[in-house]
Amino acid sequence: MPIPAPNLFPPFNIIRLSHVAFGVRDLAASKAFYVDTLGLQVTDEDDETVYLRAMEERGHHCLVLRRSDTADVRGLSFKVFDEAELDKAHDWFAAEGHPVAWVERPYQGRTLATQDCFGMPIEFYFRMDRLPPIHQKYALYKGVKPLRIDHFNCFSPDVDRAVAFYNAIGFRVTEYTEDEETGKLWAAWTHRKGGVHDLAFTNGLGPRLHHTAFWVPTPLNIIDLCDLMATTGYVGNIERGPGRHGISNAFFLYVLDPDGHRIEIYCSDYQTVDPDLEAIRWDLKDPQRQTLWGAPAPRSWFENGSVFAGVTPVEAALKATPIVAP
Amino acid sequence: MPIPAPNLFPPFNIIRLSHVAFGVRDLAASKAFYVDTLGLQVTDEDDETVYLRAMEERGHHCLVLRRSDTADVRGLSFKVFDEAELDKAHDWFAAEGHPVAWVERPYQGRTLATQDCFGMPIEFYFRMDRLPPIHQKYALYKGVKPLRIDHFNCFSPDVDRAVAFYNAIGFRVTEYTEDEETGKLWAAWTHRKGGVHDLAFTNGLGPRLHHTAFWVPTPLNIIDLCDLMATTGYVGNIERGPGRHGISNAFFLYVLDPDGHRIEIYCSDYQTVDPDLEAIRWDLKDPQRQTLWGAPAPRSWFENGSVFAGVTPVEAALKATPIVAP
Amino acid sequence: MPIPAPNLFPPFNIIRLSHVAFGVRDLAASKAFYVDTLGLQVTDEDDETVYLRAMEERGHHCLVLRRSDTADVRGLSFKVFDEAELDKAHDWFAAEGHPVAWVERPYQGRTLATQDCFGMPIEFYFRMDRLPPIHQKYALYKGVKPLRIDHFNCFSPDVDRAVAFYNAIGFRVTEYTEDEETGKLWAAWTHRKGGVHDLAFTNGLGPRLHHTAFWVPTPLNIIDLCDLMATTGYVGNIERGPGRHGISNAFFLYVLDPDGHRIEIYCSDYQTVDPDLEAIRWDLKDPQRQTLWGAPAPRSWFENGSVFAGVTPVEAALKATPIVAP
Amino acid sequence: MPIPAPNLFPPFNIIRLSHVAFGVRDLAASKAFYVDTLGLQVTDEDDETVYLRAMEERGHHCLVLRRSDTADVRGLSFKVFDEAELDKAHDWFAAEGHPVAWVERPYQGRTLATQDCFGMPIEFYFRMDRLPPIHQKYALYKGVKPLRIDHFNCFSPDVDRAVAFYNAIGFRVTEYTEDEETGKLWAAWTHRKGGVHDLAFTNGLGPRLHHTAFWVPTPLNIIDLCDLMATTGYVGNIERGPGRHGISNAFFLYVLDPDGHRIEIYCSDYQTVDPDLEAIRWDLKDPQRQTLWGAPAPRSWFENGSVFAGVTPVEAALKATPIVAP
Repeated sequence: MPIPAPNLFPPFNIIRLSHVAFGVRDLAASKAFYVDTLGLQVTDEDDETVYLRAMEERGHHCLVLRRSDTADVRGLSFKVFDEAELDKAHDWFAAEGHPVAWVERPYQGRTLATQDCFGMPIEFYFRMDRLPPIHQKYALYKGVKPLRIDHFNCFSPDVDRAVAFYNAIGFRVTEYTEDEETGKLWAAWTHRKGGVHDLAFTNGLGPRLHHTAFWVPTPLNIIDLCDLMATTGYVGNIERGPGRHGISNAFFLYVLDPDGHRIEIYCSDYQTVDPDLEAIRWDLKDPQRQTLWGAPAPRSWFENGSVFAGVTPVEAALKATPIVAP
Repeated sequence: MPIPAPNLFPPFNIIRLSHVAFGVRDLAASKAFYVDTLGLQVTDEDDETVYLRAMEERGHHCLVLRRSDTADVRGLSFKVFDEAELDKAHDWFAAEGHPVAWVERPYQGRTLATQDCFGMPIEFYFRMDRLPPIHQKYALYKGVKPLRIDHFNCFSPDVDRAVAFYNAIGFRVTEYTEDEETGKLWAAWTHRKGGVHDLAFTNGLGPRLHHTAFWVPTPLNIIDLCDLMATTGYVGNIERGPGRHGISNAFFLYVLDPDGHRIEIYCSDYQTVDPDLEAIRWDLKDPQRQTLWGAPAPRSWFENGSVFAGVTPVEAALKATPIVAP
Repeated sequence: MPIPAPNLFPPFNIIRLSHVAFGVRDLAASKAFYVDTLGLQVTDEDDETVYLRAMEERGHHCLVLRRSDTADVRGLSFKVFDEAELDKAHDWFAAEGHPVAWVERPYQGRTLATQDCFGMPIEFYFRMDRLPPIHQKYALYKGVKPLRIDHFNCFSPDVDRAVAFYNAIGFRVTEYTEDEETGKLWAAWTHRKGGVHDLAFTNGLGPRLHHTAFWVPTPLNIIDLCDLMATTGYVGNIERGPGRHGISNAFFLYVLDPDGHRIEIYCSDYQTVDPDLEAIRWDLKDPQRQTLWGAPAPRSWFENGSVFAGVTPVEAALKATPIVAP
Repeated sequence: MPIPAPNLFPPFNIIRLSHVAFGVRDLAASKAFYVDTLGLQVTDEDDETVYLRAMEERGHHCLVLRRSDTADVRGLSFKVFDEAELDKAHDWFAAEGHPVAWVERPYQGRTLATQDCFGMPIEFYFRMDRLPPIHQKYALYKGVKPLRIDHFNCFSPDVDRAVAFYNAIGFRVTEYTEDEETGKLWAAWTHRKGGVHDLAFTNGLGPRLHHTAFWVPTPLNIIDLCDLMATTGYVGNIERGPGRHGISNAFFLYVLDPDGHRIEIYCSDYQTVDPDLEAIRWDLKDPQRQTLWGAPAPRSWFENGSVFAGVTPVEAALKATPIVAP
C-alpha cells in the first residue's frame, strides 16, 4: 500500500483550507463571473482587488481577485487553530529548510508565507476579520448559491512526495489512485476539516492549480448554473460535467473563469472525521474512478492548470495513459 | 418558412401518443431493465410478452415487450377521441391509399393498423382497459419514477414530407430545425396533447425509431437513475447526458435497453395548447439547438436507431455536417 | 354518482384559463410582491395598471394588477380556440339568458364579458398580443420561477350547480369530494387544457375567488420561495404549506399577496387528456383528500376569499364540519 | 452573554456522536419503520436486537434496537480520538465524581459507561468494527436515503448547567436561545465534529431524549419520505414539518417511530470548524428561531420525549410561554 499511515499528531494544527488569490487580467470581467454568475458576495473592492466570500462563510474572504498582467495564482491559504499553532508552523517550516516570512495581508492577522516541497506558495494564518452571517439572507442568494470554499486540487510532479509532505503536516488521505504497474500514486485526496478533501493532488506538470472547489446545496443548483451560463454567453466556459466522480462520490461541474482558472462546483461529500477512516483505493485503470457516470472529460481538463506566480512547473516522472475522450 | 400552417381542423381527432411494442431478444433482461431499473410497473406478463405502464397512467400499457429473434419495433400507437374518430381515421387512410386493417390487440378495443407516408407502422384505437390509479401509491415508485410516456422521435428520410403528412392529420409543429442553405427541414417536433411533442422527426436513414421518451418528476430523478445504472452494471447503457436541449428546453438523459432501443428520460416541457402558438425555429448551424449545455452527443446517438419490423429504411436525401464529438 | 357525464361536445371550445385582474390598493406593494418575490415578468405598466406574465407564457399577460380603492377581482378570463368559437360563446350565453357584452381589453382582440350561473364575471377571447419566448432566458428567472398560470379555485354556494353549468360548456371533472350523507358535491376540479384543473369549486360563501395558481418546475422552487419570504418581511404572508394535497396530488404552498389575494404555488400535476378519464372520488370525511401530508390548513384558508367586483356572495346551503386545526 | 467561552483544550478528545440504543416494544414493527421506511441498513440482527447503519457510515452501527417491555433509551454514545483519550475520559469522569464502568458492547472495543451532570447515561469508545463502504451501492438506497447520524437533542432541566458541563468536555456552542427576562439559556446547540451540533439541549422535563437526527442529501428526499409515509399507514407518525428552523438553518421533518421515539430528518447544515466561530444568539420571543417558516409545532413536539432507562426526569426550573399552535 503506497500511502503513509495517517499522521494523527502533526507538528501544528491546520483547521482547513481558507482562500486563494488569483491574478486576473480583466478585473471587471472576473468580478462579473464570480459575482453575477457564480453568486459570491463582494466584501471589499478597489481598482486593484476584489474580495469575495460564499454564503455561509463568516471570514472576510475565500477568494481574492487581483488585477494582473498574467493569469496566475498567488498562493493557497490555510487557517490554523490559534496563534500558537502559527508559531509552531513557522518553526517547523524553518527547521525543514523552507523559506518563511511573515507577510501583511489585508483583513488578516499575522500571516506566514512559505512553500511546499515543490516550491508551491502556501500561507497560514489564524485571525481574519469576521463578518456577520448572511446564510439566512436568502434575498442575496444567486447564481449557483455557493455556500463555502471546499478544496484545492493541484497538479503535482510527484504525488507520492506530495502526500508524504502534506501527511507530515497532518493532511489525511481519504481516497487515492494507484498505478498498479509501478505501485506509485497517481492521485490522492487529503483532508483536515472532516470532508473528503481540503487538498488533492493529481500527477502532472506541476506544481499548478488544477481547480478550486465551492460547495453548493443540491445538484439542482448546478443544473441552474448550467442553464444560466448557457444563455448568458458563458456556454464555452462550461468545461466538464455535470457528472459524478467515483472518487469522493461528488456530483460535479467544472467551469472556467475568464482567465481559465478552473472552478469546480460540488456537492455530495461525506464525513471523514474518524481517525481510523480507511482510505479508499482506486485503480488507475478503472474509468469509473474519474467518471462514475457522465461524458468523458475533455483533453483540456487533463492538461490545463493555473501556474503559481514565479514558480516554473516541472514534468511528472510518472507517465500513464490518461483516459480521455478519443 | 418551411413549415406548413397548423391544420386546426384535421380529418380525425388524435388525442395523444399511447404506446409502443418492442421486439426484444431476452425478455427477462428487458424486463429487468424496464422494471427494476427504470421503474415501470408490470400490468400483465406471460412467457412471450410483458405489458408495462408508468405511474400516472390508467391505460393498461404504454410499453409492450415481445420475445423476438430480432430487436425491432412493431408500431407506434395513438389514442383517438372516440370510436367515431376511429372510423374517420380508417376512412381517411383508406382514401389516401394507405393499407388499413382492423387488428386484435389484447386489452384494447378496435384497433386500426396502417402505415404512414414512409411505410412506418402506426396504429390507432380508442378503448383500452383502464386500471386503478397508482400515482399515490408511493411505495411502488422506484428507479427513475417514470410518470408517463411522453413522445416518440423517429429518423425520417424526408422531414418536410413527414411534417406535411402528420400535419394533415393534425400534428402541430412546436419547434423545428431548418437547413439554411437548402431551406429544407432538418428536424421537427409535433404535438397533439399540448406539450412540445408526441412525435418528432430527425433527418436520417429512416423510418427508424430514434427514441421513446418517458416523463419524470424532476432532474434529480434523472441523476438518481445515473447513479443506479452506473453501479448496477448498466454504466455502458448510459449513452448521452444528462444535459439540456435547446429545442424543447428538455432536461434529458438517453439510455439504451439491452437490445439497444433508446429511451429518453425527460422533464421540463412547456404547454402548447394555444392554437396560435408560434413554432420556434432553430438554425442547423446552432449547436445549442441540440445541446443548450452538456457534452456533445456521441456518434452512436446520431446514427443508431431501432428498425420497424418488416420495413427497410432508406437513406435521407438531405446531407449535412452533423455536429458530433470529434 | 353525483357528477355529470363529461360533455365531450360542448357548444364552444375553450382552450384554457388565461388570466385574472386583481384590484389592489397599493400598486407598488403588489408589484413588489409579484415581481420581486414571486418572479413574474412585467410586460407593461403605467400608474394604474401592471401587466405580468410567467416564464413560459407567450401571451401578453396572465395577471393584471389594477390600482383600486378596494381589493377585489375583476373577472376570470379564458382563451377560446378561434374567433368563430368566440361568436359561438356569445350566442350560447345570450341564448341561456346571461348578460353578454363585447368589451375592450388592452392587448387583446375581441373580448366577450359575461357571467356564470352565480353572476361571477368571466371573459372569453381568442387573440392576445404574443411576445417572444423568454423560457430560455435563464438570467430572468427569480423568486419561485413561475412558469405559467395553472388554475383558478372558487368558492361556490352550490357546487353541484357550478359543475352542471361548467360541464355544459365543456369543463370535465377530474376529481371531486362528495358529502356522503347528502350525496351532494362538496368540491370539484374541472379542466379544459389537459391537467387536473383550469377551474375548481369548493362549497362556501360565494362566488368568491379562493386562489389563483402558478405552476413551478420543482418542489425545491417552493422551498426557495419560503426561504425568501421568511427573510424579506413576508413570513406572515405564507398561509399554508408546503404540503401535498390528496386531491390532484399537488405539492403546494399558499401565499397571500398584500391585499390578501391568495396565490397557490404548485407542481406535480398529471395528464388528463383522455376523454374516458375516470374522475377520482374523495369522501368529505377523509382528511387526506385535503392534506395527504402536512400541517392542517388554518381557519383563514377555509374562510377567506377574494370578492368579485360588484358581486355579493351568498351563503352555501350545504354545511359540513370543515376539518381545521383545533 | 450567558454562554461560556469555548473550551478549546478539553481534557479528552471526543470526535463525534456515534450511536444510540432504543428499547422498543415490537422489534419487527420498529425494524419495518427504520429499514423499510427510513432506509437504514441492517448490519446484524437476532431475536432481541437489530443493528443499523446509514449509507455513508463505515462503523458497524449508528442505531441499535433492543426488544424491551418499555420504550426507552439506553444511552447516547460518542467516539473518541484514540484509546488514550478513552483512558483520559475515564479518569476525568472518575475524578469529577461520576460513576464509571468499562462495559462490553458487541462490535465495539473498550467502552466507558458513565453519566452526565443530570445522570443521563452516556458512553465513549474508540474502536468499532468497520464495514466496507456502501455509499456508492445505489441499489441499496431507499426510503429517505439516510446518509449518517447527525445529532442528539435532549430535554434538560437546566440548560445553563448542561452547557457548562458539556463545554468542560469540549462541546462548543454554535447557536443558543436566551430568555431575555432571566438571562438564562433556553436552548443550546453544541458540536464536536464541525457541524451545527452533535448534541443540543432544550429546557424542559429532563433528562429525556427529544430526538435523534439523520442527515439526508436534499430536501426532496424529505418530501419523498412524506409521500411514502402518508400512503403506507404512517401518516400519523409525521409529527412536524417539513419546514426550516431559524436556528441551524435546517430543513427539517420530525417523524415518530412505533414507540414514539422522535427522529429528525435533516439537511442544510453549515460548517463550524473555526475555533473562533461566533455563536449565534436567538431571543426566546422570536418565533422564527424555531420556525423560520412552516406551520407551528404541535404541542406534542414541545412536550414529549423518550426517557432514559432507569433515570427519572425532573422538572425544569425555568418556565416560559412556549410558542405553540393555538
